[in-house]
Amino acid sequence: MAVLHNDTFLRALLKQPVEYTPVWLMRQAGRYLPEYRETRAKAGSFLALCHNPELSTEVTLQPLERFALDAAILFSDILTVPDAMGLGLHFVEGEGPKFTHPLQHENDVTRLQVPDMNRLRYVFDAVHSIRKALNGRVPLIGFSGSPFTLACYMVEGQGSRDFRLLKTMLYQRPQLLHRILDINAQTVTAYLNEQIAAGAQAVQIFDTWGGVLSDKAFQEFDLRYLQQVVSGLQREADGRRVPVIIFTKGGGQWLEQLAALGADALGVDWTVNLQQARQLVGQQVALQGNLDPLALFGDSESITAEVKRLLAAYGAGSGHVFNLGHGINQYTNPEMVKCAVDAVHRISTEYHQN
Amino acid sequence: MAVLHNDTFLRALLKQPVEYTPVWLMRQAGRYLPEYRETRAKAGSFLALCHNPELSTEVTLQPLERFALDAAILFSDILTVPDAMGLGLHFVEGEGPKFTHPLQHENDVTRLQVPDMNRLRYVFDAVHSIRKALNGRVPLIGFSGSPFTLACYMVEGQGSRDFRLLKTMLYQRPQLLHRILDINAQTVTAYLNEQIAAGAQAVQIFDTWGGVLSDKAFQEFDLRYLQQVVSGLQREADGRRVPVIIFTKGGGQWLEQLAALGADALGVDWTVNLQQARQLVGQQVALQGNLDPLALFGDSESITAEVKRLLAAYGAGSGHVFNLGHGINQYTNPEMVKCAVDAVHRISTEYHQN
Repeated sequence: MAVLHNDTFLRALLKQPVEYTPVWLMRQAGRYLPEYRETRAKAGSFLALCHNPELSTEVTLQPLERFALDAAILFSDILTVPDAMGLGLHFVEGEGPKFTHPLQHENDVTRLQVPDMNRLRYVFDAVHSIRKALNGRVPLIGFSGSPFTLACYMVEGQGSRDFRLLKTMLYQRPQLLHRILDINAQTVTAYLNEQIAAGAQAVQIFDTWGGVLSDKAFQEFDLRYLQQVVSGLQREADGRRVPVIIFTKGGGQWLEQLAALGADALGVDWTVNLQQARQLVGQQVALQGNLDPLALFGDSESITAEVKRLLAAYGAGSGHVFNLGHGINQYTNPEMVKCAVDAVHRISTEYHQN
Repeated sequence: MAVLHNDTFLRALLKQPVEYTPVWLMRQAGRYLPEYRETRAKAGSFLALCHNPELSTEVTLQPLERFALDAAILFSDILTVPDAMGLGLHFVEGEGPKFTHPLQHENDVTRLQVPDMNRLRYVFDAVHSIRKALNGRVPLIGFSGSPFTLACYMVEGQGSRDFRLLKTMLYQRPQLLHRILDINAQTVTAYLNEQIAAGAQAVQIFDTWGGVLSDKAFQEFDLRYLQQVVSGLQREADGRRVPVIIFTKGGGQWLEQLAALGADALGVDWTVNLQQARQLVGQQVALQGNLDPLALFGDSESITAEVKRLLAAYGAGSGHVFNLGHGINQYTNPEMVKCAVDAVHRISTEYHQN
């Protein structure tokens, strides 16, 4: 593999000295980019794009051509995992992802198994292909949904406003949900380790729905399985540490517990006060975030002011990866993304003077 | 007015000694009750029901016939206020509330004014009528949306997943949003004071969407206008304190700032750890909450366990009003509501032994 030319992102995740604050954006390869929409049209569908390592590579690299990003992230979807478990992922136009065989009966849960990782070979092929195409330009991030977040979709069969089916199982049949979560944790661990083996230089666990749980249920049904995953991950590849980032959206109240899981960094959403978060987690983890994705609908002046404010909130020293507090909105103007990325690089040097 | 027979709810809000923990449920008069659905059918539509003081009274009292609730809450909708401002509220089946004239241009905002309270007379008539029908049985809660939450609907013209229009205004034209919020704050203050004059014995401010803001934007665009409302409210009627409850959904990270506003109590959603919240707010405010509304989809055993856990989390002494952490789900089984309400009364006596 090629030598890594820009490892600022990896160093910041490990709180090692950096010259500026690195930046990448969740969902940076996506619908807000016209070139992405073109490639997707060429692929025929979102799923076809995910299944095609060559086109996945193409869209993964697209935002790097436009913006001075410090990391690339594998183009894929968190729901490839339940799909490999046989749940039958498909997309309904305007309604988002659906599963043909959601886990709604005890039998469905009993039959659930850790899938053969060969069913996800197209993902590992994409990792390998992207890593090659990057040629050491910036590090490649692999990712997975968290065991709990995957379970939300697997039980509901789709997205949900209130997660009624999931929560009915949680309150009425907690042991069924625990079985799903245990299998998910084993699967996510194997899945991320295969991504690392294929070339992922950092991994992020997207815990998108942890924030819908009560404080107690979060500990029991989410945190515990994040722990199981983190403790099973390969943390080194090619003689270099592979940092692990956990991002629980809506997890601002649980930062101390999340920081204790043994991950290298925590993603924080835009509701979190970054200064307080840094005080709270101390030296345990780096922090990634946390610009409101909708702040990119401001003008260049307001965007620069927000970037400045967040850099000041984190303050001096390493351990901050600039990002949004959630995925980029599909209606975002790419010019405003450039404005934010450049502002991070320009303004952040003053916080890294040592 | 009749003597109040059960003032447990009012005493708990003021942290005065009580014999048991009082309980009411957000949206306790609603679609999960067959008798509500009948009355609504009789009215013809949800809005017709809101506009009819007699039928509003009928549905307000319905849950009291089934459950041993310690408070009634005015049956109405937070969007009556922007409707009175001329925005043209209507409901589209399956899509929720919409406004015919949302605030999308500078002119719309410039023209906005505090409405004549006579346009909301039907609400005050309902308060008067309900108070009379209650005949001192339990206290009556009046309510309003918060200035910010109302602004969300007024700018978007409807509910939203990402509040893109609202946030575009917030980041690009903050002064326009401040104008809306100032007018909303004046209006909400007058509206709640009229409800108090008509007989409301406590008032709750529903800040349903504060949690979508960044930490900084919350201080600037939400908290500040909550403060404006709280400081303008009549806090006494008929020689008795009228307690004010503020409920910011997703506000768990801002409890200290919310507690400093001068309200008597804070509502907390189900993600909040009630024990930690009590420690955080100290003697400043009572707390209301915070059962996961979806916990009512469990069985009687799991519901009783959750009630027990939350009562224990708050601990001994007054200052806790049991409630859900958000409105009751429309698919809730009324039998399970009864189970929860009765469990609160049965189990809580041990925390009030002085």
